[in-house]
Amino acid sequence: MSERFVVIMAGGRGERFWPKSRLATPKHLLPIVGDQPMLTQTVARVMGVVPRENVFVITTEAQLAGCRRACPDLPESNLVAEPTGRDTAAATGLAMLLVKQRNPLAAFAMLPADHVIHQVAEYRALLQVAFAAAEADEKLVTIGIKPAGPETGFGYVQQAGPWREISGRAVMAVKRFVEKPDLETAKGYVDSGQYFWNAGMFVWRVPVVEAAFKAHAPELYAGLAKLEGEANSGGWSAALAHLYSNLPKISIDYALMEKSANVVVVPATFDWDDVGAWPAIAKHFSPDAAGNVVSATGMVVDGANNIVVSDDGHLTAVVGASDLVVVHTADATLVVHKDRAQEIKALLKLLEADPAKRKFL
Amino acid sequence: MSERFVVIMAGGRGERFWPKSRLATPKHLLPIVGDQPMLTQTVARVMGVVPRENVFVITTEAQLAGCRRACPDLPESNLVAEPTGRDTAAATGLAMLLVKQRNPLAAFAMLPADHVIHQVAEYRALLQVAFAAAEADEKLVTIGIKPAGPETGFGYVQQAGPWREISGRAVMAVKRFVEKPDLETAKGYVDSGQYFWNAGMFVWRVPVVEAAFKAHAPELYAGLAKLEGEANSGGWSAALAHLYSNLPKISIDYALMEKSANVVVVPATFDWDDVGAWPAIAKHFSPDAAGNVVSATGMVVDGANNIVVSDDGHLTAVVGASDLVVVHTADATLVVHKDRAQEIKALLKLLEADPAKRKFL
Repeated sequence: MSERFVVIMAGGRGERFWPKSRLATPKHLLPIVGDQPMLTQTVARVMGVVPRENVFVITTEAQLAGCRRACPDLPESNLVAEPTGRDTAAATGLAMLLVKQRNPLAAFAMLPADHVIHQVAEYRALLQVAFAAAEADEKLVTIGIKPAGPETGFGYVQQAGPWREISGRAVMAVKRFVEKPDLETAKGYVDSGQYFWNAGMFVWRVPVVEAAFKAHAPELYAGLAKLEGEANSGGWSAALAHLYSNLPKISIDYALMEKSANVVVVPATFDWDDVGAWPAIAKHFSPDAAGNVVSATGMVVDGANNIVVSDDGHLTAVVGASDLVVVHTADATLVVHKDRAQEIKALLKLLEADPAKRKFL
Repeated sequence: MSERFVVIMAGGRGERFWPKSRLATPKHLLPIVGDQPMLTQTVARVMGVVPRENVFVITTEAQLAGCRRACPDLPESNLVAEPTGRDTAAATGLAMLLVKQRNPLAAFAMLPADHVIHQVAEYRALLQVAFAAAEADEKLVTIGIKPAGPETGFGYVQQAGPWREISGRAVMAVKRFVEKPDLETAKGYVDSGQYFWNAGMFVWRVPVVEAAFKAHAPELYAGLAKLEGEANSGGWSAALAHLYSNLPKISIDYALMEKSANVVVVPATFDWDDVGAWPAIAKHFSPDAAGNVVSATGMVVDGANNIVVSDDGHLTAVVGASDLVVVHTADATLVVHKDRAQEIKALLKLLEADPAKRKFL
């Protein structure tokens, strides 16, 4: 067993939880589900799998201070800010270099900062299995989620039968990674029983992922090599500021996963929810008899299946209306139909286009 | 022509405009339509018809300070607070006594404080006609509104053919006053062409209305006589505190109008709207192409026919939802379907029943 690390990817903008989430306080810095920020919960969840010194967080300049507050137990230098967002392949490269500087033969898991997982013991056990799979052979390991339905918001992983069994858990060979499908295609995937959701959770050893970069993303590989050299001589801060924005901007799925033949998938045996938007929080709370999920100073009269998020003593009342999400914050309030939550992005574009309203982003 | 007075009835609770309206700031103290409180607009509207010294406002203890602020040009003693609400017959009696103390032969108009009337010149002309009608004979005069539809929220006045013409305007004899009808009955009223809405606007001379009290509401008449005696000897404040709460609690329609044979109606020739609830404000503003009425810091994305009231720099955004009224205030926010605005009362009952939430009333 090589030394193990976890790198938590905490750079999302969290637009879908506006107005609670803002540029400087995205979803992973908010207690969307649970009492602590999602990032804090994510760090706590990997304790026991790796030592705290081996947990990195990759975030943005704007969110760095917030991430530090959310991770008081991590060494400050383990929190690293990308100067600009360069998509997930570059972030994976940065993660690889951070781990490599500590231990060039180590394995590391890349984990999103903002998922909800309640079954922590099983999660830790499964993560150990994924580490073991990554260490057993020259494999790129992903943790696959059994689809709860034909979601079009996720990429999918097609398995190709059993690869090995580790600690009593099946690990499957992977036939291919596919991008977000349309609804018909997604239905076919789910019906086939061969597909998992790609939840963006990966485990691999530094030499294995580095070889994959070299083989499938040579331009990015070259850029990372340069970054590594400058970081080793002058430190991360200057190296990132100087070189990071030049890295190719592509996703890890497109750069590596769709092109690699040495991928295996560990089917998740824990509960999992990415809580992708406001309507998704309902299942994590106890609704009233009419299906309303209502926070402390919210109220619903003659309405069903509403979500009302109101705090700091502000009363928010929904009367004679159903299937709404209503979120009150100190300076902005959102009322959105549950089926239209994806249109929050259109609202945010309007805010961005209006100088008088940019402060609400 | 006898001396003329106007008594503005400004005691409504304005529940239907919660959360803008509260116990101490009901609808008539808010600029629901227009830039000034509805009461201020009502006072301005009668200027030119009567001198400002002849304008009284009857309100409640809780609203007295707010009414004073809304009527800075009226003599302070012209604003009188009922110690408790005793319905409109007692309020009419109080109005009568206030006017009688100034001039026992005067005529006075009783006018609600919170109606919207844009055609002020025509309104003033019509009010002069109503005064002239009241002074021409021993008549109880009401101003009737031509029904815009079979509303069940108003009482109706059935006319019985022409009585006189005054200044070129028809005044009609009245067959009867009827209470709020059900929808079928209201449709029949409207179809007949014989009915007006009873908008609670009355004009009469002191001796005529006093005789009506004596004939049709003797218990109230006796109570008013006692109140008059105490007010003349010891002032209004003590007399009201001592006696007002003992007056019978009945409506002016039931106590006098439905029982009197000497009623005439002046059909209104001005625009009129009682703006009974939030959905009714829409027609007084310019909607966007999708029919949304949105205040300064409100926004609607992909929704139609919403009313969004948001100010003080707070952003209120409606996304993917239609036919809602959304009202944001500093401590409370309401989201109500346009067709369910009457259920705001059920919400307010819940607030009243919860000690922790009474502060929002």
